[in-house]
Amino acid sequence: MIVLFTDFGLAGPYTGQVTAVLQREAPSVPVVSLFADAPSGMPKPSSYLLAAYAAWFPAGTVLLCVVDPGVGGDRRALIAEAAGRLYVGPDNGLFEIVLRRADSAQVGGQCREITWLPEKLSASFHGRDLFAPVAARLARGEKPETMARSTAPMRFADWPDDLAEIVYIDHYGNAMTGMRGETVAATATVVCGGRTIAPARTFSSVPPGTALWYVNSNGLVEIAINGGRADRLIGLAIGSKVELATP
Amino acid sequence: MIVLFTDFGLAGPYTGQVTAVLQREAPSVPVVSLFADAPSGMPKPSSYLLAAYAAWFPAGTVLLCVVDPGVGGDRRALIAEAAGRLYVGPDNGLFEIVLRRADSAQVGGQCREITWLPEKLSASFHGRDLFAPVAARLARGEKPETMARSTAPMRFADWPDDLAEIVYIDHYGNAMTGMRGETVAATATVVCGGRTIAPARTFSSVPPGTALWYVNSNGLVEIAINGGRADRLIGLAIGSKVELATP
Amino acid sequence: MIVLFTDFGLAGPYTGQVTAVLQREAPSVPVVSLFADAPSGMPKPSSYLLAAYAAWFPAGTVLLCVVDPGVGGDRRALIAEAAGRLYVGPDNGLFEIVLRRADSAQVGGQCREITWLPEKLSASFHGRDLFAPVAARLARGEKPETMARSTAPMRFADWPDDLAEIVYIDHYGNAMTGMRGETVAATATVVCGGRTIAPARTFSSVPPGTALWYVNSNGLVEIAINGGRADRLIGLAIGSKVELATP
Repeated sequence: MIVLFTDFGLAGPYTGQVTAVLQREAPSVPVVSLFADAPSGMPKPSSYLLAAYAAWFPAGTVLLCVVDPGVGGDRRALIAEAAGRLYVGPDNGLFEIVLRRADSAQVGGQCREITWLPEKLSASFHGRDLFAPVAARLARGEKPETMARSTAPMRFADWPDDLAEIVYIDHYGNAMTGMRGETVAATATVVCGGRTIAPARTFSSVPPGTALWYVNSNGLVEIAINGGRADRLIGLAIGSKVELATP
Repeated sequence: MIVLFTDFGLAGPYTGQVTAVLQREAPSVPVVSLFADAPSGMPKPSSYLLAAYAAWFPAGTVLLCVVDPGVGGDRRALIAEAAGRLYVGPDNGLFEIVLRRADSAQVGGQCREITWLPEKLSASFHGRDLFAPVAARLARGEKPETMARSTAPMRFADWPDDLAEIVYIDHYGNAMTGMRGETVAATATVVCGGRTIAPARTFSSVPPGTALWYVNSNGLVEIAINGGRADRLIGLAIGSKVELATP
Repeated sequence: MIVLFTDFGLAGPYTGQVTAVLQREAPSVPVVSLFADAPSGMPKPSSYLLAAYAAWFPAGTVLLCVVDPGVGGDRRALIAEAAGRLYVGPDNGLFEIVLRRADSAQVGGQCREITWLPEKLSASFHGRDLFAPVAARLARGEKPETMARSTAPMRFADWPDDLAEIVYIDHYGNAMTGMRGETVAATATVVCGGRTIAPARTFSSVPPGTALWYVNSNGLVEIAINGGRADRLIGLAIGSKVELATP
């Protein structure tokens, strides 16, 4: 399976063109769009989001990842292997957290710079012209080493292991942080947007209109309001800081 | 075919993860997203919308339906059979209108409570963890009784047979009501947002900027403005009341 | 492959129902949504957008194109052949630029009026009821002449070959014009929204916050701001005029 993690949007031409390339180059491989609205042009929050959601897919999955504000410049193109999954995308920190967690779990973390080049490479759409054909080849079973050479990727040692910021606002207005629930005390309160928010297991366990935090279905600390949009009512956006207060 | 009727949105992670589960569990069954923007967290308007749109699909279709504000609480999970179609989703009224119409047409209306449990069940994403695997099994031909036991679903006898409210705003700003066109006189006028709106067969049969109502392609009374967005220009949202005036 | 070019939106019921028809009528043919947010109800800008993006697909592709404000009125339904691709949609100018470019390149430009009629034809959703079944039949290999008779389509001789207006705003807020890059001097400046904008090859070659224009990956002149949304910051929308100033 090829999984798309991008900031392309679905309605416009980008996801469609990438899907057309994958369909042509690897017709029997199913393609699933996981995120088409990853934090636009922001590799740092995207890196925490990707690490949390990629872990849900089985080993062997190929993830085509494009949050790429430096496209057309001199940033390199990577194939990263981590915990049995293959990631294709730009060398801009997008794979920092995936690689770091693979390192600490000693389950791979191999990086290669893509050396394969398509016949035509546009300056602004490497997702279609470079990353998609490479992802299709990997999904068909071609080896990374036939398209790429070993390299050390850019590393971002100053990024924390868990990011105490909002990294994604979902369709309901719920706000995901870059913190794994397993690193936070179950009784901690979360402080953000001037509010102190207590934990709850489900929406329906607090009164309507009440804010709550919980560990979401992919393991991230998430802030919501029962029956309302947390983003608007609390004033949260990607990058909003979050603090923990352990009682 | 598996048809998705949800309030998940398409761009974020929810539809993608559900699609990945269906792909894994029933790889040869096509998946179509019918609505990913059903009225968010509102089973009542969603129930009228679902009944109108499900009827367009042939018998044998499996509909995976998730508008589920009570997820993780004590609401039950259902498989409903009605008019030869199978519905999987929460017991919160979402299937009320489908079941009621199947009852009155004497074409089934059998309900079962899902007793099958996945290995891992998150508190907030039963669409992925419970409903999708059950829908995949049904689409593969497994019988409902192997996963569920007969039950009486929650019923909402005070809901009308046709809902004189806006239940959906589409991409063009057209506003669908929960009223079937066949229950409304063809010459009736619709009163909403302080306006009295006359019927017309097509957009192009009224001058630009004029409001009209018509029976849409799935049988619902719908309000629009030729060349404009009815939601903004008339001030309509999900839940806005509509009145009929028969001349 | 069947490619969708519509103003339907993806989340609501229209793309899903069209996809269900294609799946049923041509189950082995992949369907890709290229645009679901073409300029809503505006065949003129859509025509330039379609011509630029259709050219990327190989000969033999069937394009199902629905930007159709006159649906249900007396506008005709067409199958157009141009440069080896087949287009299905309304006779309202949507194919004007595709046909004109095929004429000038002497690579076809044959038009037929669809005479085939489905059993049921709604007044408001010919995309589902008429165009999708015809597209599916073409994708299965049926000949246009079995469903349609030769005709001269409506022509719009007063439309320019390249449109100096914004024809699309993408997910990032970048604004595409209807001008092919090959018709514009590489050193020209673009004037719009009261600003004079210089060319650049990539986003990262100008400082953050700076506006630039470039030839996008499908050959159109596009206006953007490095790290920002050009639509909001410059005040651009579909239909905004653009002027060229050649130094």
